[in-house]
Amino acid sequence: MPATTERAASDRPIAVFDSGVGGLTVLHELLVSLPSEDYLYLGDTARFPYGDKSQAQLREFSLEISDHLLAAGAKLIVVACGSATAAALPLLEEQLAGTGVDVLGVIAPAAQLAVEATESGRIGVLATPATVDSGAYARAIAASDPHVVLESVPCPDLAPLIQSGVPLDEPAVEIVRRYTTALRAAEVDTAILGCTHFPLFAPILRRMLGRGVHLVTSGEGVVRSVERALAARGLLNERDGEGDYRFHCTGDVDAFRELGTRFLQMPLGEIERVRLEPLRAAA
Amino acid sequence: MPATTERAASDRPIAVFDSGVGGLTVLHELLVSLPSEDYLYLGDTARFPYGDKSQAQLREFSLEISDHLLAAGAKLIVVACGSATAAALPLLEEQLAGTGVDVLGVIAPAAQLAVEATESGRIGVLATPATVDSGAYARAIAASDPHVVLESVPCPDLAPLIQSGVPLDEPAVEIVRRYTTALRAAEVDTAILGCTHFPLFAPILRRMLGRGVHLVTSGEGVVRSVERALAARGLLNERDGEGDYRFHCTGDVDAFRELGTRFLQMPLGEIERVRLEPLRAAA
Repeated sequence: MPATTERAASDRPIAVFDSGVGGLTVLHELLVSLPSEDYLYLGDTARFPYGDKSQAQLREFSLEISDHLLAAGAKLIVVACGSATAAALPLLEEQLAGTGVDVLGVIAPAAQLAVEATESGRIGVLATPATVDSGAYARAIAASDPHVVLESVPCPDLAPLIQSGVPLDEPAVEIVRRYTTALRAAEVDTAILGCTHFPLFAPILRRMLGRGVHLVTSGEGVVRSVERALAARGLLNERDGEGDYRFHCTGDVDAFRELGTRFLQMPLGEIERVRLEPLRAAA
Repeated sequence: MPATTERAASDRPIAVFDSGVGGLTVLHELLVSLPSEDYLYLGDTARFPYGDKSQAQLREFSLEISDHLLAAGAKLIVVACGSATAAALPLLEEQLAGTGVDVLGVIAPAAQLAVEATESGRIGVLATPATVDSGAYARAIAASDPHVVLESVPCPDLAPLIQSGVPLDEPAVEIVRRYTTALRAAEVDTAILGCTHFPLFAPILRRMLGRGVHLVTSGEGVVRSVERALAARGLLNERDGEGDYRFHCTGDVDAFRELGTRFLQMPLGEIERVRLEPLRAAA
């Protein structure tokens, strides 16, 4: 599908999507580094969480969303969700080949940062079961350095806990402790927060992992990739001043606004509830 | 006043105080780096904010609180408030000399980190009017490096905005923008968050200052000082496992719990509302 639009190519928005509010941690890093760009964020909150979905389901969801974002004029798409990146990035790359719109995931950039950061050669990743099962982090780390040891910890309850927005009580703390204990036992010196929701729990994760463990988030890594991809196509927005941002979600608008405002620390402005078109039979 | 207690000296708590929840950003860093220690946190929420109080008032408040914390068995006191550090640290040091209890403030450690971090030699500080008026940051920076240029921005509304806990709306964003615009105009490459509340607004501050500005928080700096001070007196708690923490506040307990739980990302457990004793005439 060609991204037809009357706006100058570089004026079109960068699109960012996730199952919920986790991708806002990626959007935040983009806003810090590329403030002149326009952004369109989509949270597929009606189908949250992605972490317990099958690879086939995640590929279908991702294709539906990428169709929606292309139709909305995206000049680049960031898959700001570990589970969707793990399941669907190669397929999305294939589908978007030739459209002039690059699609970037969060796994390879974070794996690279972690390999750069580790001194002991022991890296941990906290991620959803879908992401761990896909083996995507193991492949990305091995591609960067085959001698690094990776300890993967599936964290089924963590993204739902964060997305719920409820204050941390003792049972919640015990859930986080279970996951971090597994990483501490593996004596890693670097931990990838392999789900974009997890940086929203950075304070408790830092306390539980201790100062000897360097945390790597998806957002830090992907910003460099976005900037290089846009520069390569001459699509960086060169204007002065701040760009615009808007939000789409598939679930309840008020819940998204409440949580998003608190996590992102900015008023979200216009939030549109959208219905994603099911894929055409050929997809 | 001798800190008499039957506990072994190293088992006594580290005490941390602030006007409100800002000092929790310092407590957080201490919990990351020195997790085996016990902590007692006092928030003087009934008299919040400190940023608009006179130097004389802040000295009186600080002495009352340090009496309270010594009576509670503190082995070291952290003044986790920029305004109180600026006004009262020398006086507290004098009062506690000979008790075996060190008192540490947040200004000198942050100033040192900022001088280490800057490359351009242009540093900014966002702080309360009380802190800016005291000149404490200017003296601390000049003591580290007399050739660094310091741009000080008094931010009267920022700590109250954070302590209110309300989500950021457009007028609030404009308040933050006003303060950060002054720093951007001064072309600093390093900004000290000179009030311990301000790191709780790190996301919006990072976006407004941009990626070219390195943020320095009080918490990062003071941890090293605490560790060295305790080690020098043989007071580090050497046990395995996590220490205990408890909270005192002078204002409403429920408001403190709600905000503190959210910012610190942990259940606060026991919070005791305390009444501070007025100073004896001699003080």
